[in-house]
Amino acid sequence: MRKQYDMELNKLNTQLVDMAAYVEQAVSDALKALENRDEQLAHQVSKNDREVDRMEREIEDICLMLLLRQQPVAGDLRFISAALKIITDLERIGDQAQDICEISLTMDPKPIASPLTTIREMFKESSAMIKMAVDAFITKDEELANECIRHDDVVDALFVDCRTRIIKELQSGHNDPEELIDLLQIAKYLERVADHAENIGEWVIFSLTGHHKDYLGVETFGV
Amino acid sequence: MRKQYDMELNKLNTQLVDMAAYVEQAVSDALKALENRDEQLAHQVSKNDREVDRMEREIEDICLMLLLRQQPVAGDLRFISAALKIITDLERIGDQAQDICEISLTMDPKPIASPLTTIREMFKESSAMIKMAVDAFITKDEELANECIRHDDVVDALFVDCRTRIIKELQSGHNDPEELIDLLQIAKYLERVADHAENIGEWVIFSLTGHHKDYLGVETFGV
Repeated sequence: MRKQYDMELNKLNTQLVDMAAYVEQAVSDALKALENRDEQLAHQVSKNDREVDRMEREIEDICLMLLLRQQPVAGDLRFISAALKIITDLERIGDQAQDICEISLTMDPKPIASPLTTIREMFKESSAMIKMAVDAFITKDEELANECIRHDDVVDALFVDCRTRIIKELQSGHNDPEELIDLLQIAKYLERVADHAENIGEWVIFSLTGHHKDYLGVETFGV
Repeated sequence: MRKQYDMELNKLNTQLVDMAAYVEQAVSDALKALENRDEQLAHQVSKNDREVDRMEREIEDICLMLLLRQQPVAGDLRFISAALKIITDLERIGDQAQDICEISLTMDPKPIASPLTTIREMFKESSAMIKMAVDAFITKDEELANECIRHDDVVDALFVDCRTRIIKELQSGHNDPEELIDLLQIAKYLERVADHAENIGEWVIFSLTGHHKDYLGVETFGV
């Protein structure tokens, strides 16, 4: 009984790692699609998002079955609860990658205005955060999860920088406002990607310690 | 045993309705804070968002306890699974209300540019969708849930209209680009509020029928 249970817990772990890798790839493809105005790749990311949704549902099923069939011990219950939350954040990151691709499909096929340098940085840093958060979950590394959470400030600062540049360009009147607005929206999506990675870091800490960062003093699912 | 279980199911229902009412109020207060540049109210919405988070955690606890302590029958399992999803969407709507208030706090205390008319419409329509979705959940009304889902097109069309107006104003160069960008971001948040209300409508249908709209052919949690 316990052996089968452990096998299902392992399956949950593996599928969650697969889903994370799939979502990381979507974010990386979204940058390529934007930079090269690669329409085919942009459509591919949108298509792949259905697969992300399918993965989420499959993992949800495993989690609920684990909860139903067994009486998990405290640590396992926290692990399963955290997994249920982490896949919601991963699915949202997949959505943001898709949203970025949809914007890039509507943009003119011409050289992009200067804020792209900052946006490229935002892609790099938010992808690094996803990687940190998922690695922290797999290796049960609380310090790495904390590093991921702290790293959100880097992406927030890049967003503020990007916004300031875009407002300056709008004021100068030299560039197409529609393109600048699209770039700002992409920057906003990347800020959200980082927020979701930060959430995952917080769920890792909850899974390891039973404490939720934003909810000190009360143990959630405190069993 | 079954009696206590039914009592807990009822408690779940009541708390979910309370959370929905709280979130609806936050959206309505966000509009007031924006229109009147009411800083005190804007801060209050941000403060109240912690209460929304607390409500979400409390309902999660009830759901997990129901799953753990009992072996729910198929209909109840779907109800509990849908509740777990609905509170995530409600919590996000609360976040969007808070985000709108945070933007309004940074805006100049001067008359707002013309796109506000459309934004006011977006507030009205997205609030109506939240109400429809939650009513559909309480009264188990599949048709009302479908109406809520269809209504998302109205809000999407208003967003496109708002975006077009803002781009025209940016091109004219008569208004402060920063204010226009802020209004566009607020419109984007409202479009998301409507998306979350639509999601809730879809979870209501799943809870009633066992079928998920985006996932035809496969019954999720099909027990």
